[in-house]
Amino acid sequence: MMPLVLLDYSSTLVFALTGALVASRAQLDVVGFAFLAGLTGLGGGTLRDLLLDRTPIWIADPTYLAVVTGAAVLVFFTAHLIESRLKAIYWLDALALGIAVAAGSGVAQRMGMPAEVVLVMGIATGCAGGLARDVVANEVPLVLKQGELYVTCALAGSLATVVADTLGAPPALTAALAAVVTIGLRAGSLALGWKLPVYRPRPPRSR
Amino acid sequence: MMPLVLLDYSSTLVFALTGALVASRAQLDVVGFAFLAGLTGLGGGTLRDLLLDRTPIWIADPTYLAVVTGAAVLVFFTAHLIESRLKAIYWLDALALGIAVAAGSGVAQRMGMPAEVVLVMGIATGCAGGLARDVVANEVPLVLKQGELYVTCALAGSLATVVADTLGAPPALTAALAAVVTIGLRAGSLALGWKLPVYRPRPPRSR
Amino acid sequence: MMPLVLLDYSSTLVFALTGALVASRAQLDVVGFAFLAGLTGLGGGTLRDLLLDRTPIWIADPTYLAVVTGAAVLVFFTAHLIESRLKAIYWLDALALGIAVAAGSGVAQRMGMPAEVVLVMGIATGCAGGLARDVVANEVPLVLKQGELYVTCALAGSLATVVADTLGAPPALTAALAAVVTIGLRAGSLALGWKLPVYRPRPPRSR
Repeated sequence: MMPLVLLDYSSTLVFALTGALVASRAQLDVVGFAFLAGLTGLGGGTLRDLLLDRTPIWIADPTYLAVVTGAAVLVFFTAHLIESRLKAIYWLDALALGIAVAAGSGVAQRMGMPAEVVLVMGIATGCAGGLARDVVANEVPLVLKQGELYVTCALAGSLATVVADTLGAPPALTAALAAVVTIGLRAGSLALGWKLPVYRPRPPRSR
Repeated sequence: MMPLVLLDYSSTLVFALTGALVASRAQLDVVGFAFLAGLTGLGGGTLRDLLLDRTPIWIADPTYLAVVTGAAVLVFFTAHLIESRLKAIYWLDALALGIAVAAGSGVAQRMGMPAEVVLVMGIATGCAGGLARDVVANEVPLVLKQGELYVTCALAGSLATVVADTLGAPPALTAALAAVVTIGLRAGSLALGWKLPVYRPRPPRSR
Repeated sequence: MMPLVLLDYSSTLVFALTGALVASRAQLDVVGFAFLAGLTGLGGGTLRDLLLDRTPIWIADPTYLAVVTGAAVLVFFTAHLIESRLKAIYWLDALALGIAVAAGSGVAQRMGMPAEVVLVMGIATGCAGGLARDVVANEVPLVLKQGELYVTCALAGSLATVVADTLGAPPALTAALAAVVTIGLRAGSLALGWKLPVYRPRPPRSR
């Protein structure tokens, strides 16, 4: 149990930082920071818990609310020290995505869900908070940015959970693998431009 | 039971095709196609199931996930053959709307919900997937397009479910009626411009 | 129990009026009015009920659906009599916000939730309907308007619920206090420009 709870705390914290940074770009007040931090930090886990008929994490354990509030206050008073807030959002989001994918797929795995559901739960937990943040703040959703890997990273990380668990890896190793695969792919996309072929109106071989 | 499950499969498939077509317009990669296909194909049914405290269809039966993935892959490789993807989206969406309205109102009816709840459940199941697709992809939501019938079609189809069931029609006939009424009205709006009077700042008879 | 149900009815009605007024600005037909009225009027309470694992208010009691439909029809035929619909939206939204905050925090309080959860439930119930309305209608969400108090008002109102209840106030007084605090702060922000300091790229004392 322990590792999954730690993953939920960590992804909540890091996603909350990205929400607060988006709030700083929209020049909100500190309560607005906390609102976007909470939406981003808790959105994915809450969706997962509603879908799996569990009590949402922050209702079962209000410590999560202290985490997002702390993250919001921290960013409100220190964001001006960050050189590029946009860059910070991208990289923190990558980190949070990996942790959340591990948490989401891990919980579904532990509940004995079939592999397909584990994959989707990893993707949904990883992507929902950031998607809500971007839709509410009217930014282009990261999940839909053309020519970048995003959902693909979440899918690969969830797949790592399924494979590692099938091979009998202990939960902590499984979670670490899922996070590393997700973050590694996303980092490769951000830093090195890794991508999959995108749809083009005419297929490559037709002239 | 059979007919309602078939309706859920069919509306999932056809809505997934529209999501993938929207992904093609945004020039995403194949995983992005699957993401939008899943959101569109499963959004309405998932909302209905959460509201009615049922297990979401795709958790109870992961076949749905194969359906949306298949639809996404199919569209990724064949969308270039379609002359007008926008037209295809509109007409497939009309078809999916009708099937989903029949599925949503049918499930609520079978659970013994009061008529008003049946109506809303038909509308919610029919409209939520496409609405999520349009909000996430930043398109003007079809439900809000001025001068077109959309929610009205879903309402009429759900009303057909209530009336047919009250008159003792067998489930398969009830579902067919709901779908035909919804699709017929929507087709009339798309092809013939059928619409209801829209709100105008000054009432028609003044001056 | 009585006061909380009355609060749910009232906030549903007033939020529905704002949804219908937004529909009038988008020049929709009467069914579009009802759709936005329902989304706005029932969104916050439905989210609260899903999070707290309760039956959504309008499924348990379909009277709510009559309330939003009535509000939509009323606005459809009388909105042209209103001088400034935008102003009407702002002030009715402030009123609905206060009532919904009292309803949301009150229900959570009565369920014995910890104080932090009561605060979040007041905010979520108060803000979700209007947020859904603004996102779907593609307006700038009121919760994110720069230089205005909005989430802060909901937070203060929920805090009033926690404090009043701790001091042993009867439920009706607690609810009244929560609503008055929320509406008072929001009115001060709308009419007198009350606000909190917003984030600025450089801190005030630098330079």
